[in-house]
Amino acid sequence: MNYTTYFQELREQHLDELKHFLTIPSISALSNHKKDMNEAAEWVAAKLEKAGLEQVKVHPTDGHPIVYAEHLHAPGKPTVLIYGHYDVQPVDPLHLWETPPFEPTVRDGKLYARGATDDKGQIYLHIKAVEAILNQEKALPVNVKFCIEGEEEISSPNLPAFMEANESMLAADVVLISDTSLLEKGKPAISTGLRGLCSLEVTVATANTDLHSGSFGGGVPNALHALISLLDSLHDDKGRVAIDGFYDGVPEISPDMREEFLKQNHNEEELKKSLGLEALYGEEGYSFVERTGARPTLELNGVYGGFQGEGTKTVIPKEAHAKITCRLVGDQDPSYVLDKIVAHLESHIQLGAKVLIKRGEKARAFNMDPSNAMLQKAADAYETVYGTRALFTKDGGSIPIVETFSRVLGAPVVMMGFGLPDENLHAPNEHFNLENFDKGLLTIVEFLKQL
Amino acid sequence: MNYTTYFQELREQHLDELKHFLTIPSISALSNHKKDMNEAAEWVAAKLEKAGLEQVKVHPTDGHPIVYAEHLHAPGKPTVLIYGHYDVQPVDPLHLWETPPFEPTVRDGKLYARGATDDKGQIYLHIKAVEAILNQEKALPVNVKFCIEGEEEISSPNLPAFMEANESMLAADVVLISDTSLLEKGKPAISTGLRGLCSLEVTVATANTDLHSGSFGGGVPNALHALISLLDSLHDDKGRVAIDGFYDGVPEISPDMREEFLKQNHNEEELKKSLGLEALYGEEGYSFVERTGARPTLELNGVYGGFQGEGTKTVIPKEAHAKITCRLVGDQDPSYVLDKIVAHLESHIQLGAKVLIKRGEKARAFNMDPSNAMLQKAADAYETVYGTRALFTKDGGSIPIVETFSRVLGAPVVMMGFGLPDENLHAPNEHFNLENFDKGLLTIVEFLKQL
Repeated sequence: MNYTTYFQELREQHLDELKHFLTIPSISALSNHKKDMNEAAEWVAAKLEKAGLEQVKVHPTDGHPIVYAEHLHAPGKPTVLIYGHYDVQPVDPLHLWETPPFEPTVRDGKLYARGATDDKGQIYLHIKAVEAILNQEKALPVNVKFCIEGEEEISSPNLPAFMEANESMLAADVVLISDTSLLEKGKPAISTGLRGLCSLEVTVATANTDLHSGSFGGGVPNALHALISLLDSLHDDKGRVAIDGFYDGVPEISPDMREEFLKQNHNEEELKKSLGLEALYGEEGYSFVERTGARPTLELNGVYGGFQGEGTKTVIPKEAHAKITCRLVGDQDPSYVLDKIVAHLESHIQLGAKVLIKRGEKARAFNMDPSNAMLQKAADAYETVYGTRALFTKDGGSIPIVETFSRVLGAPVVMMGFGLPDENLHAPNEHFNLENFDKGLLTIVEFLKQL
Repeated sequence: MNYTTYFQELREQHLDELKHFLTIPSISALSNHKKDMNEAAEWVAAKLEKAGLEQVKVHPTDGHPIVYAEHLHAPGKPTVLIYGHYDVQPVDPLHLWETPPFEPTVRDGKLYARGATDDKGQIYLHIKAVEAILNQEKALPVNVKFCIEGEEEISSPNLPAFMEANESMLAADVVLISDTSLLEKGKPAISTGLRGLCSLEVTVATANTDLHSGSFGGGVPNALHALISLLDSLHDDKGRVAIDGFYDGVPEISPDMREEFLKQNHNEEELKKSLGLEALYGEEGYSFVERTGARPTLELNGVYGGFQGEGTKTVIPKEAHAKITCRLVGDQDPSYVLDKIVAHLESHIQLGAKVLIKRGEKARAFNMDPSNAMLQKAADAYETVYGTRALFTKDGGSIPIVETFSRVLGAPVVMMGFGLPDENLHAPNEHFNLENFDKGLLTIVEFLKQL
């Protein structure tokens, strides 16, 4: 039976299985989901076992467990390490979901659920692709290892140590990851770059109590004013980050890179339309793909302070808060960037207000040369299934562990994504287009066979 | 029996009664407290009835009811209209209260509860003062009317119409209000000015969905950035409101006024210390009492958008919100000020973002000449009880209805307050110093007898 027929016959069964996976609310960021994290890990292990993998084990860590499995019966052939994550992002604002995030629903050929595309749907493809080859051919054309973690959405705090402690178990000739997107529907892409990340939480505090805006308004510092003035100082009016030293280590975009970006032929008008925006926004002098692929950014992810209830409350709040993340490129050092941000905040805080900072995650950017043979074979596989050769892109997101894989295992990393850019990952109504579910299975089989 | 002895003998009974009043969570701003509002109104009516007042009635309005009562048996003598409010502010942040807001508790001679000083404690003084005179002397030296509303904390939307519809019922020679503060412990003050108020809610909206800061960060507008930049444009770096036309109608402080402010001899060092502030803040060139008494202000009371949960969420929020109130002085017209703010917001919003505005409350500032005979008699009454003559001050707060009383009834308004500036009104741990509970009763009796 050819693979197309094989996957068609099992399609409903596969979708039902994936839906079950998607009902588990494995939100790694929220400590009250510990049980769900374990359930999701056990689910992955059971499916790997069923697929025919060996040495399947749920490895505990100081955080959420890591699932490992292998099938090493192709001597002389390359070893592929397949990486993915079973954890998902938080779901709020919940009221904006059309169907509940953990009640998977298919509408218009799209599977809606938190984790549908990021990354449960995509790791499921690899399990089923390997299972298919073993079912059909009773052997794999290459050696395969799986390493599926549960802390990707919180920057993989425990995987690097696990990797270093299990270097020989994880050793591979290529790392294969599906946690990125096609360029657009029908246009496959292989990411050869990921931005790095650093995060921090900022609290501004003023008086020792909330104050009445009548008796005190105009005469005392207001924590919200102080925070807002501080946050507004982080960018200039050209959309550039205004922090001294922030751009240290950011490479200028070379003519070659610019040409590669141009090839993506990104339709900014269409993007604006799909997002309901009158205008895009960002650093002057760069296109959207350059801004998100090759330029760093500092984003406010959350700001809050004072009264949020119904109506009016004439209060001067004593404290206000902001959550900030930066995406980094090139040689930007996340610790150095955090130092620079902290120095900026501390030197720009208004008289009468205090700033308290909690540093968060840190990850370096990652880059690969598109001429690498593994990347070219991945492009071949896409071409066979999608009928069009994959473009080599730079992805704006961060998968902090990619840089670590590349460094610790010394292997090229193939980011073979099957999502779409508008699938609302990290937002309400996340979904996975089932066209790429079908084609993804075939592309992975093709890649493993071509290696 | 002299009044001091009278009130001492009944002190525990009075405090118990007031505590019961304070257990009713009559928060006018929250629609789910409708029942509590009615209960508080009925409570006031019952106590007025018991005190010997006549024509006691709970008048329904389109919002919360107004309690009216009268005692008009002093022909040829002046008529005093006593105004107050039985509604209170919301209580959040609840976790900062040392004891629950609606479980009144006495600690260190202070009665802690929401509404203790603003304004349940203070209206209770008037009821008991009138009751005392009737008990002791079987007659009142003046004609007395009570008008106690339940919407002061939401800007009295229904009282003006009630006042106009019942002009003859409410007609008076002087309006007496206790909803302000002494200057400090032992230093009585009579407010001869109140700031006006206007409020609005601002929403900034960008894309039609929250976006992933990896895929989109740096390339699309972020609603939080747009809001923060907009809010930061509302002030210049000298603490002045930077909205064109905002200061129209604001009188310069005259040398006389400046001298009156200097008399208050406000200790800014002590204020900083009590608030835990390293520095005060405000418009350059003015003292604290001038800033809060004679200058307008624009305050952010609440700002929120994006992720507020535990940890990090790499989201670019699609919308962000702010709640703003202004305190107005002199001839500032609240509608005109709102127009100017809206024009500023609409012209300063960043490309790619939309601003939506909901206009709220409006009230003009109020001013009285300290040489008015009624104000001088009030100062006499304070002097008799406190042993020191009241200063004539300008209060930073707003009691929107005061300007309406003065205009509709054409009567002077005596603001004879018994609170203290640090009693946390509108904030957690609101309280009322019982020294002023005792002296307040005597001062009101004295004032009514001297009229």
